[in-house]
Amino acid sequence: MSVKMSKKAKSDPTEITASGLADYLGCPHSGEGGVKLTGFAGLETAGPGDLVCLVNLRLAEKLDKTGASAAVVPADFSLKPEGLTLIYSDNPHLSFIKAVSLFFAPLRPPVGVHPTSVISPTAKIAPNASVGAFCCIGDEAEISEGAVLFPLVSVYPLAKIGAQTVLHSHVSIREGVEIGRRVTIHNGAVIGADGFGYIQDSEGRHIKIPQAGGVIIEDDVEIGANTTIDRAALERTVIRQGTKIDNLVMIAHNVSIGRHVILAAQSGVAGSTRLGDRVFLGGQVGIVDHADIGDGAMINAKSGVTKSLPPGAMVSGNPHLEIHTWRKAHRSLPKLYDLLKEFNRLKKRVEELEAKASKD
Amino acid sequence: MSVKMSKKAKSDPTEITASGLADYLGCPHSGEGGVKLTGFAGLETAGPGDLVCLVNLRLAEKLDKTGASAAVVPADFSLKPEGLTLIYSDNPHLSFIKAVSLFFAPLRPPVGVHPTSVISPTAKIAPNASVGAFCCIGDEAEISEGAVLFPLVSVYPLAKIGAQTVLHSHVSIREGVEIGRRVTIHNGAVIGADGFGYIQDSEGRHIKIPQAGGVIIEDDVEIGANTTIDRAALERTVIRQGTKIDNLVMIAHNVSIGRHVILAAQSGVAGSTRLGDRVFLGGQVGIVDHADIGDGAMINAKSGVTKSLPPGAMVSGNPHLEIHTWRKAHRSLPKLYDLLKEFNRLKKRVEELEAKASKD
Amino acid sequence: MSVKMSKKAKSDPTEITASGLADYLGCPHSGEGGVKLTGFAGLETAGPGDLVCLVNLRLAEKLDKTGASAAVVPADFSLKPEGLTLIYSDNPHLSFIKAVSLFFAPLRPPVGVHPTSVISPTAKIAPNASVGAFCCIGDEAEISEGAVLFPLVSVYPLAKIGAQTVLHSHVSIREGVEIGRRVTIHNGAVIGADGFGYIQDSEGRHIKIPQAGGVIIEDDVEIGANTTIDRAALERTVIRQGTKIDNLVMIAHNVSIGRHVILAAQSGVAGSTRLGDRVFLGGQVGIVDHADIGDGAMINAKSGVTKSLPPGAMVSGNPHLEIHTWRKAHRSLPKLYDLLKEFNRLKKRVEELEAKASKD
Repeated sequence: MSVKMSKKAKSDPTEITASGLADYLGCPHSGEGGVKLTGFAGLETAGPGDLVCLVNLRLAEKLDKTGASAAVVPADFSLKPEGLTLIYSDNPHLSFIKAVSLFFAPLRPPVGVHPTSVISPTAKIAPNASVGAFCCIGDEAEISEGAVLFPLVSVYPLAKIGAQTVLHSHVSIREGVEIGRRVTIHNGAVIGADGFGYIQDSEGRHIKIPQAGGVIIEDDVEIGANTTIDRAALERTVIRQGTKIDNLVMIAHNVSIGRHVILAAQSGVAGSTRLGDRVFLGGQVGIVDHADIGDGAMINAKSGVTKSLPPGAMVSGNPHLEIHTWRKAHRSLPKLYDLLKEFNRLKKRVEELEAKASKD
Repeated sequence: MSVKMSKKAKSDPTEITASGLADYLGCPHSGEGGVKLTGFAGLETAGPGDLVCLVNLRLAEKLDKTGASAAVVPADFSLKPEGLTLIYSDNPHLSFIKAVSLFFAPLRPPVGVHPTSVISPTAKIAPNASVGAFCCIGDEAEISEGAVLFPLVSVYPLAKIGAQTVLHSHVSIREGVEIGRRVTIHNGAVIGADGFGYIQDSEGRHIKIPQAGGVIIEDDVEIGANTTIDRAALERTVIRQGTKIDNLVMIAHNVSIGRHVILAAQSGVAGSTRLGDRVFLGGQVGIVDHADIGDGAMINAKSGVTKSLPPGAMVSGNPHLEIHTWRKAHRSLPKLYDLLKEFNRLKKRVEELEAKASKD
Repeated sequence: MSVKMSKKAKSDPTEITASGLADYLGCPHSGEGGVKLTGFAGLETAGPGDLVCLVNLRLAEKLDKTGASAAVVPADFSLKPEGLTLIYSDNPHLSFIKAVSLFFAPLRPPVGVHPTSVISPTAKIAPNASVGAFCCIGDEAEISEGAVLFPLVSVYPLAKIGAQTVLHSHVSIREGVEIGRRVTIHNGAVIGADGFGYIQDSEGRHIKIPQAGGVIIEDDVEIGANTTIDRAALERTVIRQGTKIDNLVMIAHNVSIGRHVILAAQSGVAGSTRLGDRVFLGGQVGIVDHADIGDGAMINAKSGVTKSLPPGAMVSGNPHLEIHTWRKAHRSLPKLYDLLKEFNRLKKRVEELEAKASKD
């Protein structure tokens, strides 16, 4: 699928030459510099006018067959596929992303408040914000400049939405939640629902602990579809700057997530746990409550982390083990069944030797 | 609970006789053919006028006590419970389902566009489609004949909804997503949110890879509540014909799911992975990215599949093992603790034998 | 963060003295009884006028440094931090929760039906219910006295919402679902979507089993954000009184959950399984279909329960093991790799002994 600027961005479709793009990226190029670029695509589906990117050198042979007009390649790339203009970059993927932003802009609705939306008279909406149809914005809520609310978004009273932040359809922002700037929240995510806290009374009933705290989402965070981030009981659940959260993730009350953290889909972090900066969680990970996960820890998909981890830890499994220990253990596990049988045989042989030795 | 046709379907409630139903199903019957059937129920709660179904022969004795008027039974069923008309079928469950469709039709709202909905002037809505209250349909979106949108559905620009497809409340269909015919999508599902892709810059910040691709859902797919299917980065995420997806499932960007696949609840498939036809995933399964899962592979609940699987593979565990190997390993696991102790004891006995032997 | 009554409850902010509060709680106190309390907070962030609670005696030293005016402490607490009024309770956490309810009331919208909402003429709405903007209420649905629907809630035909029940934005209540009194359902939860049931026809296609049953949610249940509870095929999926369900939980069709059960986030219960009273599920647990989980069973986070459990069972792991067995097995697992190597060495030594013995 080739993405053309005229089709997607819909704003003054322009062309750029391959040499013009190379200059823009600050990169050298080889081959025909005057070829016009109008879009981008994957190696196998690209056509004339498309820019492609070679990230993985094992795919280099696909450059020979691509229909694209130009390719971003590693700086030391030595092949010269015929008829293809090459742009050389120290970080081809990053240069490609920069180039793509010339052709592709994510869908944005027009500025202004749709007349169907219901806005509290005490809410503040910046004049250049965009509020789609059927949005509800509660008392004293604030929507800052350039913020975008797609249709059917619910913003409860006292919530604050930062500048340039984008909320997709069916997002719920609960009372008093504070969202920073340039945050993107995908459809159906729920920020600030009550934390899950009860204590049992003498008859075994669960009495709700009031969830009176809040949530703070800092700048440049992205939050996936149908993810839920609960409000704290007394303080605030915090997601720090630049952290990226995938779909269907659960962040419990009073959790604190550091900067530039990655949380892959369907992961869960239990109450009051703290993640440092640049922590990485694979998909379907679970982390116990009240744990402290050090900066840069890497947690393999599907792990169950049962206690705190030092900075830089690499773990896997449930309960988690250091990752090399886990790999060795699980490589060994299928041999356990035979080992048990062999052990019993060996024991008999030892017994026979003992019997023999005692006779001697 | 007995479901009566007059209550649910609300469209000209009619009766059918047991013999009439047997004819309709192309099945022989025994017992009173003239008994009138007006609904269906489970064996234990059925009353007069109800049809029941015996799928599991171990429940045959319940037929004696059922209050039902007729039962669909296996073709070779030999008992004759008194007062119960029996309809004999080679596939009783399938025949029962056909019969039930005479009594029960899922809830459908009236044809036409509710006046509160906000429809772009460039969207195309088929005249016999049904669009409920507070739906939002974006520029150049298409809603085909017989499609049903329950209230509060969000269809972004350029999306296409096929004929007879049903979208329940709070579904989000993102820009450019293409949905086939006779697809059912349950409440809160999100189709086409951005894939989760970033590359790190030199300062460790996560730079977003534009998610400019799309999603294609083919005909006869069913998608569960709050499931999320992400758009591809460049190409298209694809769900092929007849595949059934349960609730809270995560399908990442660029994934391709084959025909007639079953994905049980809370499963996740990571980016660019390909599933063949008739693959079966139990609940809470996770599959690694860039893997190739062969046709007909069966993946046990809660498995973590860490690499590609051949057609017909049967696996379980995390990391996955062939299922019999996994069963033997996990039957053995509780014996490991004692084995370690016994091994040390045996080692000592061998040492003693060695000491004795060296003295000799 | 200190929560002040004037800020949150917004209803006649009043003060209470520490001695007045102690009387209200039926607890003795020490220190200055006349100090005025205006809110509550955590130990570390409290300021003048705040009430705090000491649940964990290991945090007792923090009482010396807190800025709070009063603290609820265990009945046998012996320290007397200067300037702090102490209220003595046999159950400090429960007393604190009672006190907090004087200062903090969860956000509630005004009584009445918002004029934008679309209500079927055959629906019954109690005069003192609250129905927010853009709610849709279907034919013959019932909303009882004191019930609260936040904006953008979808209630399908024939559904019943009990007195004082609260539905947050983007909740879907499907056709015929019955919800009891004082239930809270957080944003995006879906109650009564179709259960996931198919049978294969002779060509391997999945034919849908009609999901014609219902869902009953009893009184005092709480359901987390984006959780899904499916309707039964023929009977009813049931959640009994006082049960608390966290976010992103999946309850399949025909499941029956007992009283005062706790289901932590991202857990899943497969079809037709029955949970007794006071069962506890940690996060990300999965339970197989058609199982019977006895009263008071405790299931550790991330477990995969593969068959029925007796009352009071305590299990962990996938497949589940009795919890102590599981702990011993997983403490032993990292030693398996070395054990396999050592075993082979020992076998050789036994062979040598045997060779020697046969020579003798």
